[in-house]
Order: sequence, then structure tokens, then C-alpha cells
Amino acid sequence: MRDVAVINVGVTRFGEMWDESFRAIGIEAGMQAIMDAGIAGDDIDALYVGNMSAGRFIDQEHIGALIADYSGMASAHIPATRVEAAGASGGLAFRQGFLAVASGLHDIVVVGGAEKMTDVGDVQSNSIQATAADQEWEVTLGATFASLHAMIAKRYMYDFEAVREELAAVAVKNHRHGAMNPKAQFRREITMDTVLNAPKVADPLGMFDCSPNSDGSAAVVLCSLERAREFTDTPVKVLASSQASDTLALHHRNDICTFAGTRVAARRAYEMAGIGPQQVQVAEVHDNFSISEIIAIEDLGFFDRGTGGKATVDGQTAIGGNVAINTSGGLKARGDPVGATGVAQIVELVHQLRGEADRRQVEAEVGLAQNVGGTGATVVVNILGVA
Amino acid sequence: MRDVAVINVGVTRFGEMWDESFRAIGIEAGMQAIMDAGIAGDDIDALYVGNMSAGRFIDQEHIGALIADYSGMASAHIPATRVEAAGASGGLAFRQGFLAVASGLHDIVVVGGAEKMTDVGDVQSNSIQATAADQEWEVTLGATFASLHAMIAKRYMYDFEAVREELAAVAVKNHRHGAMNPKAQFRREITMDTVLNAPKVADPLGMFDCSPNSDGSAAVVLCSLERAREFTDTPVKVLASSQASDTLALHHRNDICTFAGTRVAARRAYEMAGIGPQQVQVAEVHDNFSISEIIAIEDLGFFDRGTGGKATVDGQTAIGGNVAINTSGGLKARGDPVGATGVAQIVELVHQLRGEADRRQVEAEVGLAQNVGGTGATVVVNILGVA
Repeated sequence: MRDVAVINVGVTRFGEMWDESFRAIGIEAGMQAIMDAGIAGDDIDALYVGNMSAGRFIDQEHIGALIADYSGMASAHIPATRVEAAGASGGLAFRQGFLAVASGLHDIVVVGGAEKMTDVGDVQSNSIQATAADQEWEVTLGATFASLHAMIAKRYMYDFEAVREELAAVAVKNHRHGAMNPKAQFRREITMDTVLNAPKVADPLGMFDCSPNSDGSAAVVLCSLERAREFTDTPVKVLASSQASDTLALHHRNDICTFAGTRVAARRAYEMAGIGPQQVQVAEVHDNFSISEIIAIEDLGFFDRGTGGKATVDGQTAIGGNVAINTSGGLKARGDPVGATGVAQIVELVHQLRGEADRRQVEAEVGLAQNVGGTGATVVVNILGVA
Repeated sequence: MRDVAVINVGVTRFGEMWDESFRAIGIEAGMQAIMDAGIAGDDIDALYVGNMSAGRFIDQEHIGALIADYSGMASAHIPATRVEAAGASGGLAFRQGFLAVASGLHDIVVVGGAEKMTDVGDVQSNSIQATAADQEWEVTLGATFASLHAMIAKRYMYDFEAVREELAAVAVKNHRHGAMNPKAQFRREITMDTVLNAPKVADPLGMFDCSPNSDGSAAVVLCSLERAREFTDTPVKVLASSQASDTLALHHRNDICTFAGTRVAARRAYEMAGIGPQQVQVAEVHDNFSISEIIAIEDLGFFDRGTGGKATVDGQTAIGGNVAINTSGGLKARGDPVGATGVAQIVELVHQLRGEADRRQVEAEVGLAQNVGGTGATVVVNILGVA
């Protein structure tokens, strides 16, 4: 396995893009990443696309070929592969692209992630998001994706005597970060009161504990580290990439307040990178719900079990804290076009490690991205570092 | 890149399985392949699953994690990845599994393909199959998946002065083969008259020119060739695996009677295997419609352009002919559970190369599988040989 670098990135603004089609959004980030890197279509060896459910959201499967075609890669007949693991689709696409270059099979690979969620109504969108959970044993019995996370939150509050404010602090912090990200869906700060007094989605989670429906895409160009400086002065090295699965249904786990998928994927990634969690200075984690971020930062080893919420209240996960979590605004404020999210996490890390994060900039040599499918049945952890 | 072998295979019966769920069908072939190879869950390094549209057919995305979970792999947190390229999903999953072993990343990989199409009605099923084509420029304008292939057939008949019987001969031959396959959906022979007099689906294609809706799964276990004999006395070597994309919409091509995706993928695969089309003695090709097989056997180099239909009428593609095409019965008679099809093609080749094809057996040292997504926007070609 040889060293791999990210040589360029692109990301669209996330939000409700009523006037743009999936395919227009899907190629925008990729074209940005390719053109900025000075790469032509013929230089590209393969395309990997992360997408959760275009079949349901826009009646279109065959997303790899679609993106290749509309990016102008069809004339070169470039292999185009869509991967799906619900919310982890983007991180998984990045991992497949990384492996394709690390193995020596390909030299230059484009990884994209895209989703267009706003062409369907909210009820339909909720139903589609629930396809990430176990249809036969969870969804048909009435569970929504939010209610599954509400159960996790309830149990966490019980097990660790956590207070409602610990959850809310995640949303407040991520909106503060998102306000500094020009590509974020929500670019305004919110107060603790706003979160606490918002209409309930699934008790104890209110509207501001949940990430929004979003449209958007993100892309990165990967290359062998050896050749990376042909294209950029600031390559970012992929230190590790790992992936783990777990039971699809929540009730098959012994403990729902920790995701074994995250713990296993993180352990494998730390081993591969030769570092521990204390070396990570900036991380994008999967805060599809406020409780998810708290559990993520514990499972990743940044904080002890039961202390992630308290650390968030104390400001330890904000920009300027011990480890800056979701400087982009996270899924909560940057937005969550599902298939794009895992790739957008990488884009934010690259901006941070290159010193291009503007008002969100933190001092960092190593960044980590954790991308989750369902309630943790797929977890992908990628670690990047200054080359 | 190191040598890779298929060490075992499994396949369910294909058909309308009203009394079985997707997940039950999905794991059946895999369990068969794993248990016959004497492999335990802990030996498996990764799982790749080909599936086209479970999100639409059964309201369930996150298929990789689902199959891993219900196969008992979740406790070992095995990385599980679903890939999708419409009809080519299965072949693409095989290719990803092959690359994972060839690169040295993994030693033992399970590749599965599954689809459950009969939980929705025929109209809905047609709509889902059309998600393989270009929604914005083909489907919303009234094109069905069958009508796109009907246009190809019409043009082929015009360009090459082909007669209706050439198309029909494909169906007659594949039903004859399928009648000898105990796992096939249709195990009865049909006559030329039956095909010619069947109700029209999209002129000139009648009901017997079209592959059916099917449920089913198929699986193979891949291993480095070096270690293959630990598990089997009859490993089958993967000589080549390649993939190519093309425009999603048919009208963006200069010529719709030849698939550049097939030609390019085949050229790459022949180069990789160090052989030419004349060395291939048995091939499974993507006969989702009768016209598709004719174009496939021309694009793969078995026959000159415009002569594939005539060669079929002459019996050159039947068992006992120059090159035996679709000895399994093909998509037409074996059935076409979309995501399973590409993997089932590999299963048939392995049976043939191991001399386990019973009444369908042909003399063969080299077999080829061609798996198509949409109207050729993704084509995967895999070549296998006696080890």
C-alpha cells in the first residue's frame, strides 16, 4: 500500500436548492475540484460517488454513470462506481477511492458525494431517511430515524445523569461554527433557549437537535503522495481509512449509548495512522442528532464515557478548545445532503490542514472524520495529516 | 497486483419468491458459499454487495450492513459495502471484491448480489427499472426501459437487414439452456412461434424477448490464488476484471447498435488476461432483452457487427456451438434479480470451469461475463480461467 494524498477539494453551498437539479449540483463540486487542480478528464482513472437514495429522492439510480457522464468523463469511459451505506455513503466513497490509489491500481481518482433531498416533501423525506434503519424490525413498528436517536438520548441521560443542556450545547456550538462557514446551510448563531424551547421532534430531541434536509455535493481529488506535488503545493496526506459494521437494528446491541462500529473503526484507523486520539486537533463527526456528536466524541476516545456532553458545555469541543469538533458547522449547521456529508467532512479537514479555513481556522496537523450510516451499522473513520 | 481466485460459489433458485423476504434470500447464497468453503465469519475480511434498488423495491437502503448483520458478520464488525450501477451492480461488486484481494488489502472477501423485485406490482417495477436510464431526458419523456431497447432493436434490424427471427432465436436458445438449469426461473423450452406470437411489450420486442422480474441472490468467495488451495481443490482464477462507463442517455451516442462501454471494457479485459475473444469458450452476457445479447456478442468480438443474430439462428452460440453463450439460461430464462445477476454470471462460469455444470457442461478453460447497467452506461467484463 502506497501513500495517498488529497490534492484538491470542492464543495457546493448546502441548502434548499429549488432551482437546481441533482445532476447540476452533483457535478458542481467535482468540476471545482478538478479544475482547481489543473486536471483534465483524461488524467482521471476512476470516479467513486457516495449517494444514499437518489432512487427514492429523484427516481434515479445509476448515479455513478450519471455523474461521470455529466462531468464529461463518459467519452473516456472512466470506471464510475456508486457506493451506498446510508449516512456513511460519502465517507465510504472516499475510502474506496483511497484504496484504489493506495493499492497502486489507479493514480488519480475523483471522489464525489451528492444528494438532492428537497424534491420530495418532509413526510416522504422522513420515510426515505428511515431506510437507513431496519425496516422489518424498527420502521414498520413505528420507529422514525429521529425516534431511534431519541431513545439513545433518553438512555444516555439516564445512564450518565446528563442534563438536556448537554445535548443543546452541541447545537449551539455547531451553529456558532456554521455561522463562520460561507457554504453552510445555516449561518446564524442560536442560543441555548432557542434549542430548549423549540418544538419537539422526538422527546427529548427538539428541532434544533436534528440536522436539516439539504441539497449539495462535495468532491475531492486523490493522487499518490509521490505525484501530488505535480498538482499542488499543499497536498494533504491520508494517514488512515477504516470501516466497520454493526447490527442494523439498535435493539440488537448490548449498549445503545456507545457505537461499537465507531470504536472498532477508530481503533483500526489509529493503528494505521500510528497515533492516538490525543494527537487529533480537529475532527468532523456525524452529528445528525445532537446526541450523536456526544457519543461520537466519546467513542473516538476524545473524552471518557459519559463526559462528552459536559465537555461540550465547557467549550472543550469548540474552536479554541482541546479538540475542535465540527468546525464546518457539522451536519446540524453546514447541512446534511446525506451522500455528500462524508465527503464534505474531508473537504473541511483539508481546508483546516491547509490553513484555508478563514475565521474557522484552528491550529492542526492531524484531522479526523467520522461518518455514520443508520444508527451506527456502518461507520467510516478517515484520518488526514499535513504532508 | 496479485492473483485472485474464486474458491466457492452459491446461488439461490431464481423466481417469484412470495414467501421469502429480501434478507432471507440475500443471505442464502452467501451462507451456502461460505459454508461449502469451510470458512468461518472471522476469516472474512470484507463483504461487497451488489444491489440495484432495494430502496425502491423494499424500502430498505443500507444493504451492505443489512447483509453483513443477517449473515452473522456484524459481531466481527466486517466492512460491508454496497455498490450500485443498475443492472451492472453485481458485476461491479465482484470487481470491487477482486480489487480488494488483488491489491493485497484483504485475503478473503465475500461478494454477494441480491434483489427482491416481486414485492411491488408490475407498473411500479417498470418504473424502478427505468431508474437505470436517464430520468430527465428519457424517462420523463415517456421512454420505458423496454422501449429504449426496442429502439435499439428497430435500428439494428434496419442497419443490418436483420429479421425478427434473429431476435427470437436468442430467447429460444436461452430457454433451452435454462431448461437444464435447476436454479433457473423458467425451466421449459419454447418454440420460435411462441416468441413471435407473444404479446408485444415494445415493438418489435414481445414478452419472450424480455427478461422477467425475479427474486434471488448469488455469492462468491474470493481469496488470493496462493491461499486458494487451503479451501478448495478446484480454485478458478480471475484472469481479468474491467469496467467502463458511457453516456447515460441513448441519444447521446453516435451509434446505438454498439455499446462503447462493452467494447472498451472488453479490450481492457482481454489485454489484462492476455487473450483474445477467440480463446473464450463460454460466456454469460447481459441478455435483459434479446437484442442485448446480439449486440453483446458482437461488441465482445465473438462475431462481426451485424452477424450476431445470424450466428444465433445458426446455433453457433448454443451449447455445442463455437462459443456457448448463456449456458445458465441467461437473464431471460435463469431470471434477472437485478443486483444478483452479475454475480450469478460468475457462479455459472465457475460451475462450467470446474466441470460441475451437469447437462449444461461445455468444454471450457476460459469463461467471460459481461454485465450491463442501463442501456450500456456501465459495463463490467470479468474473465475467469481454470487455475
